[in-house]
Amino acid sequence: MSDPSSDPLPGPSPGPSPAAGARARLDALRTELARRGLDGFLVPRADAHLGEYVPACAQRLAWLTGFTGSAGMAVVLATRAAIFVDGRYTLQVREEVDGTLYEFRHLIDEPPERWLKSALEPGMRLGFDPQLHSERQAARLRAAVAGAGAALVAVEDNPVDAVWIDRPPPPNAPIIPHPLDYAGRDSADKRAEIARTIRAAGAEAAVLTLPDSIAWLLNVRGSDVPHTPVPLSFAIVQADAAGGEDARVDWFIDPARVAGEARAHLGAGITVHAPADFGPALEAAGRNGRAVLADPQTANAWVFARLRAGGAHIVAGPDPCLLPKARKNAVELAGARAAHLRDGRAMVRFLAWLDRKAPVRAAAGAPVTEMEAAQRLLALRREDPMFRDCSFETISGAGPNGAIVHYRVSERTNRALRPGELYLVDSGAQYPDGTTDVTRTVAIGAREHPPDDEMRRHFTCVLKGHIALATACFPPGTTGHQLDVLARIALWRAGLDFDHGTGHGVGSYLGVHEGPQRISKAYNPVALEPGMIVSNEPGYYRNGAYGIRIENLVAVTLRPAPDPDGRDMHAFETLTLVPIDRHLIEVALLNADEASWLDAYHARVRAAHRDHVDPDTRAWLDQATRPITP
Amino acid sequence: MSDPSSDPLPGPSPGPSPAAGARARLDALRTELARRGLDGFLVPRADAHLGEYVPACAQRLAWLTGFTGSAGMAVVLATRAAIFVDGRYTLQVREEVDGTLYEFRHLIDEPPERWLKSALEPGMRLGFDPQLHSERQAARLRAAVAGAGAALVAVEDNPVDAVWIDRPPPPNAPIIPHPLDYAGRDSADKRAEIARTIRAAGAEAAVLTLPDSIAWLLNVRGSDVPHTPVPLSFAIVQADAAGGEDARVDWFIDPARVAGEARAHLGAGITVHAPADFGPALEAAGRNGRAVLADPQTANAWVFARLRAGGAHIVAGPDPCLLPKARKNAVELAGARAAHLRDGRAMVRFLAWLDRKAPVRAAAGAPVTEMEAAQRLLALRREDPMFRDCSFETISGAGPNGAIVHYRVSERTNRALRPGELYLVDSGAQYPDGTTDVTRTVAIGAREHPPDDEMRRHFTCVLKGHIALATACFPPGTTGHQLDVLARIALWRAGLDFDHGTGHGVGSYLGVHEGPQRISKAYNPVALEPGMIVSNEPGYYRNGAYGIRIENLVAVTLRPAPDPDGRDMHAFETLTLVPIDRHLIEVALLNADEASWLDAYHARVRAAHRDHVDPDTRAWLDQATRPITP
Repeated sequence: MSDPSSDPLPGPSPGPSPAAGARARLDALRTELARRGLDGFLVPRADAHLGEYVPACAQRLAWLTGFTGSAGMAVVLATRAAIFVDGRYTLQVREEVDGTLYEFRHLIDEPPERWLKSALEPGMRLGFDPQLHSERQAARLRAAVAGAGAALVAVEDNPVDAVWIDRPPPPNAPIIPHPLDYAGRDSADKRAEIARTIRAAGAEAAVLTLPDSIAWLLNVRGSDVPHTPVPLSFAIVQADAAGGEDARVDWFIDPARVAGEARAHLGAGITVHAPADFGPALEAAGRNGRAVLADPQTANAWVFARLRAGGAHIVAGPDPCLLPKARKNAVELAGARAAHLRDGRAMVRFLAWLDRKAPVRAAAGAPVTEMEAAQRLLALRREDPMFRDCSFETISGAGPNGAIVHYRVSERTNRALRPGELYLVDSGAQYPDGTTDVTRTVAIGAREHPPDDEMRRHFTCVLKGHIALATACFPPGTTGHQLDVLARIALWRAGLDFDHGTGHGVGSYLGVHEGPQRISKAYNPVALEPGMIVSNEPGYYRNGAYGIRIENLVAVTLRPAPDPDGRDMHAFETLTLVPIDRHLIEVALLNADEASWLDAYHARVRAAHRDHVDPDTRAWLDQATRPITP
Repeated sequence: MSDPSSDPLPGPSPGPSPAAGARARLDALRTELARRGLDGFLVPRADAHLGEYVPACAQRLAWLTGFTGSAGMAVVLATRAAIFVDGRYTLQVREEVDGTLYEFRHLIDEPPERWLKSALEPGMRLGFDPQLHSERQAARLRAAVAGAGAALVAVEDNPVDAVWIDRPPPPNAPIIPHPLDYAGRDSADKRAEIARTIRAAGAEAAVLTLPDSIAWLLNVRGSDVPHTPVPLSFAIVQADAAGGEDARVDWFIDPARVAGEARAHLGAGITVHAPADFGPALEAAGRNGRAVLADPQTANAWVFARLRAGGAHIVAGPDPCLLPKARKNAVELAGARAAHLRDGRAMVRFLAWLDRKAPVRAAAGAPVTEMEAAQRLLALRREDPMFRDCSFETISGAGPNGAIVHYRVSERTNRALRPGELYLVDSGAQYPDGTTDVTRTVAIGAREHPPDDEMRRHFTCVLKGHIALATACFPPGTTGHQLDVLARIALWRAGLDFDHGTGHGVGSYLGVHEGPQRISKAYNPVALEPGMIVSNEPGYYRNGAYGIRIENLVAVTLRPAPDPDGRDMHAFETLTLVPIDRHLIEVALLNADEASWLDAYHARVRAAHRDHVDPDTRAWLDQATRPITP
């Protein structure tokens, strides 16, 4: 699905709390704030890891206000309160949140910093939980609050938790070892590399706050949040000489969760500590001005405060695991290919079913709905014993719903798949050997109700962009923002564009969105290196009519110079193996190279699946993948 | 010609001074330095404007060392001296400079800063002329010298000038008014805009040190340096309320050069001062902490020193003329079209002559040479009464010489144009209504000696890149680094690339290289805006064999949304009208869109010229521009 940094995902929905209770919850919080001598408090959606998904126990914003979106913040003062959400949630927030309790504000156009400047009075004490804000964000808030003559006060424990009676317990499922057959590289080897990186950055230790960095480094997985198989935890990597090449890691996670097999799997060099020991360990890590690496972009303000309290010399720099985690090794790439083969098979069976059923069901007056389609696809994926979870909440949008980039089907919006309309399905899965993410747009009942010329023209523009990126070659050092135009130029020539990124990094049985590489209009200094997996997902969205997106995952590969005078280049290997709807292609708009890419891709898809699917699916697959060139 | 910021041009050659004199000149300088109590001195190639071309009176590096390249610096100490040049000049410097007097160093790989750290001893006083170094560069040098325990000492008057007996006088030709018919906008109007820009930057005045900024602002031209029709001068723009909307300009240039007609042309609001008054005026401009805008990238260190001496609050920011100068107005664009029409006609007559003569002359044993070809082209351009100058020194390279990106033909290198070889000619002219810059690569005697498949394949890759950029559409806000890949992807797919920028800005009867926009791999935050003129010049260079470059100038235009749901885009209008050699095109490698672009372009070229050339040229033109699609 499309790039979160341009358009984050809605997270899991604990379901809005009963509106009746909202006032009571707000009153309880205000009483607690008064008791603590605070004039107000910030309630962001984030947890202490500032990640894409937040466990139920940390869904404070949803519990307090009822808002279940993936980004937002509430500001609670004694007599006023406001909730800030971005453009994706301006409608949803009005449905979920009581407008008599909270003013609705636009997170980007009317940022909290500005609102605070007007709402706060000199001398006021505004509380915030430093664990729920990045070091960068906290600095901005502190400046804004100071600008109003008020003070931003860090709290030790979160007042919301004090009044949240039925608060769910923190995740406590056992840690899952991630075996070498999937990881491809043992933790000691990874830790030795990270230790070198830390020393090269001029530090003796590093704080890791990103759960997927820790999961990668220790070769463990978990189930603490939906869609991303990581345990929520913190770690400190000791990279001083004492650690030698094989760096020691202090891992802060409930020891009860690291039982027998998992403990053995960790091996030497990793010490498990109770989460409560993290604070003191941060202070100890920087004693006597010891140099500690921490990432102001991704680590929370509390981490920096504790490091400073300990007297650390803080080296600000990116999480040292980001790049090596992004460069998949040969075993991870082999796993990705295997996972995409199985995942593609489920998609093929789904699309064959949809093509067969949608028209007849519609004719019979019992059309397939967005919700049923998503459930069917999930059921087919579940048949794979390796299936662990969806890699994000499926986007299943028919007709105009497909034009809502972040659409999530609900009972209220659930739309029928009508012949003649377009249907967009963006979904993915988590398998131990790989993470998938694929989008297809199909014409419902195309044989009896062919898509109109405009749909075909727009789909073909998107396809041309997808092919241009899929077939790109580029010299080492080339970054994603240099390639982005390839996916857009066909749309631009038609006076069209799409307002999300073109490609995001994808983890190996980790986050479906991972950095640091990215393909988008925005400047990004990180070069695309062999082994990196990114999505290739141009789209076009016609408001109120339909949405089009064609997404495959691709892996960066090395392409040796074709002739002695040439240069070595990088190229992309397409991992996703799912047919692209031929009914939506205006063949005349494709040039010979584009047409032959499509035919070659479809031949690959057919060969990959046809001997492994039922006769009906095989018949559909043969039709769906036949050449478009005579 | 290709982008100077990636690969600057050699400047004019005063001709190396006799080697015999080099030692005497060096001795004289050392004596002068001793007299002043200096242990050494820096002699850069730059003048006080730090521009691409330097007048004879400021060619201190060439006078002292004999080195005539366009970039470099000599460092003279009591017993050692070194000259620093970049990769383009490593051979030339050995031919022009006496190795017994100067150590040869690589400007990039062995920068002067590093050499100084080792060569200087504590307590030494190294002199430098702050007028010949940018504020940025001076800071780097100061740090390096301090690192060696020595001091960087700014001199008031340059010691080289003190010993340069036969030093040419400074340029003193009369200022040439640039009439409204060509400028399209009067100076008062331009000054009013600049004043607003200066105030928006939080300043009350601005220092202008770039001659082309001043020439644009005051609608004047000059002949102080070759190839760029500007008078060398400085200016201070007063933008305080007192100046009202119609900003006052203090212009520092010999008043004798601004005689009757020119003076009248300037009109009110512009005061001419003697160059010697510039220093005191800088101090006055910033009195009592007045805010003055100056550009640390382009203004010299002396300007900043004088501003500080006066107590100015310096606002560091880009020259306020850069953007409005880059956005050509309708009259300038009409002038550019007219200039390219006439310039294209000269090119067409040249290429027709070359195609006719080169084979027969070669067969007769008296082949056309690179030098003769360049002279012939110049003679044809000169027939246009509007011709004023070449816009840069012509690159005329046959066979392997074409692979030297910055090749300049000399008696020694002058090569015959041999049938079966490629010939690259990159040239341009200055006309009052516009500046041109065009590169064509042709196969010599192609009919009897057709170019080989490799030449055709490489040429066609370059052509595909040229067409991809020429036909690009892009949303407002798109920058050059976003489009660069379009010109390279065909080469990249073939494992090839070129190591210079893809496009540089071009002035309107001003510098053939101007910013701030640019098309290259390097990040550049400046968006391409309607009216901007840039070159489109991908290439490919096979060392020791041949060079290929296809360069047209294009203007950014506004392209309204094709349909109501579409968006307004920007696009390029190709200004250059010269045939592209069909003998070098492998038609099978072009797709239908590319082929039709080429045929449409050639039809335009034919229609533009055929009724205005002699019968022989017309016959050639009809052949050269016939469609490649049957």
